[in-house]
Amino acid sequence: MRRSKRLVLLSKFLSDNPNRIFTLKFFGEKYDAAKSSISEDLNIIKDAFYEGGEGVLETIPCAAGGVRFRIKRPQKEIENFLSELCSVLSDRSRIIPGGYLYMTDIIFSPEYSSRIGEIFAQIFVEEEPSCVLTVETKGIPLALMTAKALGVPLVVARRDSRVTEGPSVNISYVSGSSQRIQNMALPTRALSKNARVLIVDDFMKGGGTARGMMELVRQFGAEVVGVAVLVTTALPAEKLVKNYISLMVLEKIDAELGQINLKPVKFPANEEGI
Amino acid sequence: MRRSKRLVLLSKFLSDNPNRIFTLKFFGEKYDAAKSSISEDLNIIKDAFYEGGEGVLETIPCAAGGVRFRIKRPQKEIENFLSELCSVLSDRSRIIPGGYLYMTDIIFSPEYSSRIGEIFAQIFVEEEPSCVLTVETKGIPLALMTAKALGVPLVVARRDSRVTEGPSVNISYVSGSSQRIQNMALPTRALSKNARVLIVDDFMKGGGTARGMMELVRQFGAEVVGVAVLVTTALPAEKLVKNYISLMVLEKIDAELGQINLKPVKFPANEEGI
Repeated sequence: MRRSKRLVLLSKFLSDNPNRIFTLKFFGEKYDAAKSSISEDLNIIKDAFYEGGEGVLETIPCAAGGVRFRIKRPQKEIENFLSELCSVLSDRSRIIPGGYLYMTDIIFSPEYSSRIGEIFAQIFVEEEPSCVLTVETKGIPLALMTAKALGVPLVVARRDSRVTEGPSVNISYVSGSSQRIQNMALPTRALSKNARVLIVDDFMKGGGTARGMMELVRQFGAEVVGVAVLVTTALPAEKLVKNYISLMVLEKIDAELGQINLKPVKFPANEEGI
Repeated sequence: MRRSKRLVLLSKFLSDNPNRIFTLKFFGEKYDAAKSSISEDLNIIKDAFYEGGEGVLETIPCAAGGVRFRIKRPQKEIENFLSELCSVLSDRSRIIPGGYLYMTDIIFSPEYSSRIGEIFAQIFVEEEPSCVLTVETKGIPLALMTAKALGVPLVVARRDSRVTEGPSVNISYVSGSSQRIQNMALPTRALSKNARVLIVDDFMKGGGTARGMMELVRQFGAEVVGVAVLVTTALPAEKLVKNYISLMVLEKIDAELGQINLKPVKFPANEEGI
């Protein structure tokens, strides 16, 4: 196979499998080429991904020699994307009677959810999450795309336990915004004790749901390594969860005037300055 | 930018944006290159994607000249993948008390769900779906990945209507397997009248849920162009939905003997021979 074709297929493969380690031997066999040729290919790809703002192709010191592609977009590009997203979401036609903001189409869009998931992954990759956790329903697309970008499994808590999923751990928690008691269940086989869990959700008001997920993780004896949310409301300022990252803050919806005040969070930013 | 770097970035871009048309002018500006150079790049990528079994880079006749990457994996590769999937799912530890099969980890895995979504997309791309529809919860990852591979939006019906999503169309239907009356709701703004809808779900027994989704689409005056399901049960042989494609058939679970009889469907196969 000629170099140009190998470059095409290698680029696609690495892009499809972010954050996973592959050896030069593996690629040599896959593309029927000498390790030295593969090594040269990877250097070209490394420069191209870096210059193109796609990410970093890291060399991993291991017996056989390996590489790992990590998505890393320039800060400016992420800021532009979040500004664009705020502008799309601030269209007055998105105001739902009752003063809610219609975000479902954006959250379920493969295009937006994959970009948001890549941003979450980029922020938390150094924490080395071993899985992503969310609770049904609207958090699933963002959480799945985050898991994909991290190369780890997704785990989804349900609102109630299902006979089709076997024994489960169930918790009750008070929703921060509605003050209602809610349930959350996760099959016992879904999470292992030594898991490093990144919690992802679409929206946070009081933080009760996120705290419920943290409690659920604790019941399994596993560890929460981060909480990532797409949109938080400005009020209440005190959330039930202390350390989280959100990409946008919803300050106000004025249904009368048809005004939505939604702002991107300066990236990267959380209380720990990550 | 040198050719080799352009090849890397172009390959990644096309791979990230399947089934969407881009003009040579767009790429020329993006990578600061002459249209003739981009055209040569695309020819190399076309050959590489084809030889590597990734898919087809089609030339689209339009004013400015355009290309579209469509995922198209060799039949043999898909058959191997489905055999492997059946083997993973047939592990006796997956039998849940009550005679159910635990598939949640596979369905929620970014790796499996994206491969399954790409297969669904490959089967139905010629029907030109304008969106993918599923119902919460377990169908979402497969449906999202199908939508991503098709380059179209995802629409998710809920079990009940939500105040946060505005006015909705609600239907009741009888679940084919449990014979219980269930509800399904979709915000009125989620689906347009001229939509061409591909229905995706993880599991079908009686077909009641799929028929419910078809009824929901009909209420919007839109058209169903296909129904894609990961696993169907062999019994009942008569489903409430006539034309569907499933990738695997669950013939039997014997909880006593710890046996699971799950088989890949010969691909591609449905009643219309698609």
